[in-house]
Amino acid sequence: MYKTPFQVTILGSSGAMPTSKRHTSAQLLKHGNKLFLLDCSEGTQIQLRRMKIPLMKINHIFISHFHGDHYLGLPGLLFTMHLLGRTNELNIYSPPGLKKIIKTHFDICNLETSYKIIFHEIDKDRQTIYEDTTLLVDSISMLHSIPTYGFLFREKPLKRNIKKGHIDKYNIPVNQILKIKAGGSYTTPNGKVLSNEELTIAPPPPRTYAFCSDTGYTESFTGQIEGADTLYHEATFMKEFSELASKKFHSTTTEAATLALKAKVKKLIIGHYSARYDDSELKSYLDEAKAVFTDTYIAEEGKRFDIG
Amino acid sequence: MYKTPFQVTILGSSGAMPTSKRHTSAQLLKHGNKLFLLDCSEGTQIQLRRMKIPLMKINHIFISHFHGDHYLGLPGLLFTMHLLGRTNELNIYSPPGLKKIIKTHFDICNLETSYKIIFHEIDKDRQTIYEDTTLLVDSISMLHSIPTYGFLFREKPLKRNIKKGHIDKYNIPVNQILKIKAGGSYTTPNGKVLSNEELTIAPPPPRTYAFCSDTGYTESFTGQIEGADTLYHEATFMKEFSELASKKFHSTTTEAATLALKAKVKKLIIGHYSARYDDSELKSYLDEAKAVFTDTYIAEEGKRFDIG
Repeated sequence: MYKTPFQVTILGSSGAMPTSKRHTSAQLLKHGNKLFLLDCSEGTQIQLRRMKIPLMKINHIFISHFHGDHYLGLPGLLFTMHLLGRTNELNIYSPPGLKKIIKTHFDICNLETSYKIIFHEIDKDRQTIYEDTTLLVDSISMLHSIPTYGFLFREKPLKRNIKKGHIDKYNIPVNQILKIKAGGSYTTPNGKVLSNEELTIAPPPPRTYAFCSDTGYTESFTGQIEGADTLYHEATFMKEFSELASKKFHSTTTEAATLALKAKVKKLIIGHYSARYDDSELKSYLDEAKAVFTDTYIAEEGKRFDIG
Repeated sequence: MYKTPFQVTILGSSGAMPTSKRHTSAQLLKHGNKLFLLDCSEGTQIQLRRMKIPLMKINHIFISHFHGDHYLGLPGLLFTMHLLGRTNELNIYSPPGLKKIIKTHFDICNLETSYKIIFHEIDKDRQTIYEDTTLLVDSISMLHSIPTYGFLFREKPLKRNIKKGHIDKYNIPVNQILKIKAGGSYTTPNGKVLSNEELTIAPPPPRTYAFCSDTGYTESFTGQIEGADTLYHEATFMKEFSELASKKFHSTTTEAATLALKAKVKKLIIGHYSARYDDSELKSYLDEAKAVFTDTYIAEEGKRFDIG
């Protein structure tokens, strides 16, 4: 149904601290042949190599906030891109302050990178921070202890497709095809007008991916992400720790699932697990969320999910 | 022969960039029950967890220089120590400038660590930067593109041991034992004088570990590390790239081995391999070095070497 691949790969699923098996927050989002990095925790460049993802093809990096587990892999990745002789511009979207951090690292070793880095500062909610011919990205305000933004990736509506066989059937000339694709009708040599609806079929609906981490439970962005094909929502704790979660501006399994339900999303991925849980406990984790929202999945290193 | 364990564990063996299997520069040196971290590259905290090394017991961290592959794991490790509620002071030894980097990271997320960090700046060659009851650490000037120091860990000379059986044989009272250990003789109730040499045996010689990375080939510190029990010397390239190595202030297999030979060390470990070499090429790597210095070993993640 969809021609353009749209999928997310989990590079790191752990919360504040890594474990011997789980890396901290990072995801690789692929849309068509474009690669977007969402968060860039310590070790992200190693995870990219392990998963054979070509790190030089990443041109856009989105950083949710400046807690160590979400951005500390960035300096290393930037150094590596330089060592590999990158020349393409790199765009980084984050709350204000990143440029100073990166400059401090570069200055101490007199580094001038082989490529240009463009720092895009996010300072408000529902700001469209990225746009290309097929995709838009908006900021989503998270409820956290420091300025933190989630990211809503939404496809632009696709054009209607000409029905298979109609070009041959009505012998439509090439120069008319683009017009029909743009919404026009077609008049046959006999003067018969074929409406656009008649000639085309509706495209599949635009797909959306909402990345929401880190955040305490809040319904403030439920409307913004409503109907998303896939929602990634942090679930640092199991439900028994709801008080602790709230105090630390994090969410529980049940809260993430409740939000998925209220926002009427189609699929929920949970992650950002506290290091107190070992891998064998993730089954109970999933069960707690599924009890509220059936279509829930567990983020695990290397897992790939199709969006829509 | 030696009662105190003295060993180094390789946490990362890769040069400037990590590979899917090799982490960048970091080693854990254990002397008795003290743990010293030498360099702290990206992912070091994960490597420590994997190797079940208790990261909270590390009280002294030595950073050779500020190229990304030698220190970018430090902010993450410091964050984790805070999250784990560390209260013990942490000492970090490095060229000047580290405090500013760490402060920049802490400031952006309003972090005040639960423990005190003491930054010790190294700014000259052969400076004794650390001393305790059993061990000394001196700086070693490396030949590199930015200020870089190696580290010479040397045990203090041990006291002579009283010969087994002599305490009983001569019925030496307890209060005399400490005097003998301090170098004194003993006079028996019959007036017979037993010399210290007669009563004691020489302790094993103090052991030394020299960590030399990153550096171009130089004989400037050959005298300082002479006779070291174990020398770790970088060998970024195989010998065919000696010109490139020199240009980039790095060494080849042959150069590292030549230095080991000239400095009359007992054992050589080589590491800091360029990412161009995959693991299967390390055998040839080792062969090149062994052709010059027989007792050479290859650094590999998780490998542990006894010093002396």
